[in-house]
Amino acid sequence: MLTSSEIDRAAARISGRVRRTPVMTVAGEEFGLGFPLTLKLELLQHAGSFKPRGAFNRMLSEPLPQAGVIAASGGNHGAAVAYAAQQLGVQAEIFVPELTPQTKLDRIASYGAKVVRGGATYSEALEASRARQRESGALEVHAYDHADVLAGQGTLGRELEEDAPGLTHVLVAVGGGGLIGGVAGWYADRAEVVAVEPELCPSLHMALAAGTPVPAPVGGVAADSLGARQVGGLMFEVAGRHIRRSILIGDDAIRAAQRALWDALRLVVEPGGATALAALHSGAWTPPEGARVGVIVCGANTDPATIAA
Amino acid sequence: MLTSSEIDRAAARISGRVRRTPVMTVAGEEFGLGFPLTLKLELLQHAGSFKPRGAFNRMLSEPLPQAGVIAASGGNHGAAVAYAAQQLGVQAEIFVPELTPQTKLDRIASYGAKVVRGGATYSEALEASRARQRESGALEVHAYDHADVLAGQGTLGRELEEDAPGLTHVLVAVGGGGLIGGVAGWYADRAEVVAVEPELCPSLHMALAAGTPVPAPVGGVAADSLGARQVGGLMFEVAGRHIRRSILIGDDAIRAAQRALWDALRLVVEPGGATALAALHSGAWTPPEGARVGVIVCGANTDPATIAA
Repeated sequence: MLTSSEIDRAAARISGRVRRTPVMTVAGEEFGLGFPLTLKLELLQHAGSFKPRGAFNRMLSEPLPQAGVIAASGGNHGAAVAYAAQQLGVQAEIFVPELTPQTKLDRIASYGAKVVRGGATYSEALEASRARQRESGALEVHAYDHADVLAGQGTLGRELEEDAPGLTHVLVAVGGGGLIGGVAGWYADRAEVVAVEPELCPSLHMALAAGTPVPAPVGGVAADSLGARQVGGLMFEVAGRHIRRSILIGDDAIRAAQRALWDALRLVVEPGGATALAALHSGAWTPPEGARVGVIVCGANTDPATIAA
Repeated sequence: MLTSSEIDRAAARISGRVRRTPVMTVAGEEFGLGFPLTLKLELLQHAGSFKPRGAFNRMLSEPLPQAGVIAASGGNHGAAVAYAAQQLGVQAEIFVPELTPQTKLDRIASYGAKVVRGGATYSEALEASRARQRESGALEVHAYDHADVLAGQGTLGRELEEDAPGLTHVLVAVGGGGLIGGVAGWYADRAEVVAVEPELCPSLHMALAAGTPVPAPVGGVAADSLGARQVGGLMFEVAGRHIRRSILIGDDAIRAAQRALWDALRLVVEPGGATALAALHSGAWTPPEGARVGVIVCGANTDPATIAA
């Protein structure tokens, strides 16, 4: 299982490759809340989401083959792998499902990667990428279910605890579970890591209910970033020990949180990036009295025009 | 003339009212530059620009009359005064010129202020607001040419130096000159404060050439935030001592810097907020070897749809 020393090693390995994104504490008032919020502004990461942390940690852990790297992604992981490959001077081939928006396709291509449409959802794109990988011999960089990826994402928790010590609760959006697995692995039980998922992509909620990862529906406004069909086995080992609950959120609440982030902070955030905040903003989850609450704002790969002025 | 102890007092006075916005150092590579940049992310301030610093410092310096406050503004100062008035529980009346975009009108109104269209440019709106002020008895909160406003804006320089000590150059966009006056007053000669203006709004450039504030043209993409007809007398006392040059930038370079801030950092920034970066990004100004360069990203009150994905 993921250990804090693996996360320490990941932090050393990816240092200088990823940005130490800012942490900012804001009054809750502007979000309709009676307590302050500590926001980790990870949308300012390279390639527009937290994903380069895991991608670099995976790609710097072993020599890269001549054929470069290959990945399947709803878009953010693909952009991160493409960015990391460009930085490291290797080829990247990225398989994306049909639901990936044009903005993300363009972003992946902007880093020089080859983009291949494969299947309706992430899990189908993953199958297609694996068939291709057997031909090409490229290194697979899994979007979440790999120890190096999980440890890389854990560096976000490590930075957050250093920059904002004493948080009692940290809210994290969940797709395949790489980010929350890494963050919960870092915090262990020093803070309660609260999972937040769209009602229409309830992969961790269903896994916690079943006691094991199970296939879940994939739909709604955040499906391109949180639409893994099921959570990873590695993250679930961490979740089983450290994650008590996954709050489900409607698409309207996600859109409202996006709007609030623009109105109160002038941040354009994609639906998946606003999902953790949506749990608080919508009132779906209320922290206990005296809690010190952190929220990870994890991605912004969207068309700014979707945030109407 | 503005002193550092006035800025210290301003910082104490407005503490808790304004956000301490993050400072982030990024590799210059993604902006086509061979050196790192330290960005002060002041677009994350309340009301979407640095303006609440001066507005709060002015409004907390004396008892507010029953009639509340009145201001003229291209938009950002008006939003700040409206926000501050709402926080302090007084009325605000804001005069804006015809060039103020709808986004800013809506933002001012969203804080409960009365918005009045008055004249083609900021200077005409200022005249109209002064006629009205003589009737109403409200406190005028000038957008830049008042000692308390200048000291309030200076708190931005104070924070930047605390969070990023050792900068040798700080780039600041100029309209009426309140921000750069405050920041140059803070830094004195510990860093060179470099002014950047649109070619179509060259108020400081012309004042430096004339040796005194003179009327300048007002036009182009940043006119709603940088379109004061002439710089303030108070700021010019500071400028005469500490500001050596004002770099002029074309509108295309400003648009390109906006685009780069989105591509490299996922920040939606208004034209005036991207103007300081534009001097570097366009190559109009190059720092000397070994410089440590700070850039103030000062506002984001724009329609996100203007940043095409």
